[in-house]
Amino acid sequence: MGRVTARRPIRRLTPDGDIHRPDTLAVEEPFEIRVNGTPLTVTMRTPGDDVDLAHGFLLTEGVIGSREDVLTARYCAGSDVDGMNTYNLLDVRLAPGVPGPDPSVTRNFYTTSSCGVCGKAALDAVRLATRFPVDTDADTSTVSSHVLATLPDQLRNHQKVFETTGGIHAAALFTYDGALLAVREDVGRHNAVDKVLGWALLADRVPLRDCVLMVSGRASFELAQKAAMAGIPVLAAVSAPSSLAVDVAREQGITLIGFLRGETMNIYAGAQRVVADSPALAQP
Amino acid sequence: MGRVTARRPIRRLTPDGDIHRPDTLAVEEPFEIRVNGTPLTVTMRTPGDDVDLAHGFLLTEGVIGSREDVLTARYCAGSDVDGMNTYNLLDVRLAPGVPGPDPSVTRNFYTTSSCGVCGKAALDAVRLATRFPVDTDADTSTVSSHVLATLPDQLRNHQKVFETTGGIHAAALFTYDGALLAVREDVGRHNAVDKVLGWALLADRVPLRDCVLMVSGRASFELAQKAAMAGIPVLAAVSAPSSLAVDVAREQGITLIGFLRGETMNIYAGAQRVVADSPALAQP
Repeated sequence: MGRVTARRPIRRLTPDGDIHRPDTLAVEEPFEIRVNGTPLTVTMRTPGDDVDLAHGFLLTEGVIGSREDVLTARYCAGSDVDGMNTYNLLDVRLAPGVPGPDPSVTRNFYTTSSCGVCGKAALDAVRLATRFPVDTDADTSTVSSHVLATLPDQLRNHQKVFETTGGIHAAALFTYDGALLAVREDVGRHNAVDKVLGWALLADRVPLRDCVLMVSGRASFELAQKAAMAGIPVLAAVSAPSSLAVDVAREQGITLIGFLRGETMNIYAGAQRVVADSPALAQP
Repeated sequence: MGRVTARRPIRRLTPDGDIHRPDTLAVEEPFEIRVNGTPLTVTMRTPGDDVDLAHGFLLTEGVIGSREDVLTARYCAGSDVDGMNTYNLLDVRLAPGVPGPDPSVTRNFYTTSSCGVCGKAALDAVRLATRFPVDTDADTSTVSSHVLATLPDQLRNHQKVFETTGGIHAAALFTYDGALLAVREDVGRHNAVDKVLGWALLADRVPLRDCVLMVSGRASFELAQKAAMAGIPVLAAVSAPSSLAVDVAREQGITLIGFLRGETMNIYAGAQRVVADSPALAQP
């Protein structure tokens, strides 16, 4: 699309001087997802991988569960002042028999009638919504801490836009062997995750058993919820999780790793899936 | 409130060992803002400063412009399984004559009829919505780069929750002399900004002339829009801005500073407000 980064003139002050030069920025543009012609949501995203983004959003909001649930995904007409298509509007047509989203689809994740608005309600909503619960009894696969230690560098090495802008989030999917399946970038952390999960849905890989979802920043409730909706057993983050992210991971049987920095990591939930086999640990 | 941080048992792997210990996390809980009894939005936030948060949200969404626009802000009933009030539901009663929010208040920032959904529409929406445009002709005050260089450390020193959790955003207001007015923390960057702007509204300081809004992370469109809605002339961020944040700052006459790290900074818009007077620059 050629719209992922943009150049702007800046003034840069350093202890060595006061200069004017161009700088490269991550592009942020609004994106509207429509379902069967009806506007569902507008998100501020980095253009590119929009079809993945829409599929991932609809997966993690519980509207679709496989690529067969979608008939077509097409950019709508929508032109800027010069008459050019903005490519900021995507209409998703659902397959016959697939119910459209509840108009309050996003609200439902946070509120239920049981206790009004609270963390417990949010946890209940995820449990009720996910089609691919992680079965911790049957799922006895493990992932090596030494493999996990390689993921942040692998993620960083594939962050093309971060390299030039320093201002973008990334999400990636890895096998338990540490093989990279896909990586996506976006100014919004949730969009980066939706893009990579939409890729997986379109590649017929959902539920993502024996996979690690790695994110470049923190792990919020929203990201843990998205992992749960895609059936992902391991969520790893470079930074801290929130209390509610840990709670949803525990309830959903998801392994949640935070502060993953080289061979150092905190495991907040599902610690049984991680085998400590880093070379340093093997040599007491 | 005692609900800002929470403890959870974790397993911590390092090159030196495999231990179990408790860890402190930033709390994330849903929060519903109602206006005159009608639900307006649900945000995932860190409890505390909820009244500030609601005022800031309503200010930056264009619903209110001063504290006189609000009659009362009260927690609603809403009890958890033990019958305790969840304190996650705040009802704001507007003063007589203050119109309630458009049901699609948030959407309006991203879409207008002029070009459907695009960055230009988002810029137009901010221009139309702000009550406190920064008048760049009349506003000839300047801020010193040496003062700006002190702000990140000041912000960090006041981040009490970050200190213990490493997982929370912060926003602060400073005078041009570098005096801290207020600082707020939240798991959501937008909430931290709304909290600090709500504080300012309740302190009768909006529009925030001759003030710097400093944020701990990146500067997105949403944060630049919030600065515009509060009449703030200078927005400074520790990390990168997005393209659209720069565009809205330029159009609104706001000075936007990114990668503010000590005496080094990038000025993306409104560079005329920054006087380069760091000691290093003064001694060629």
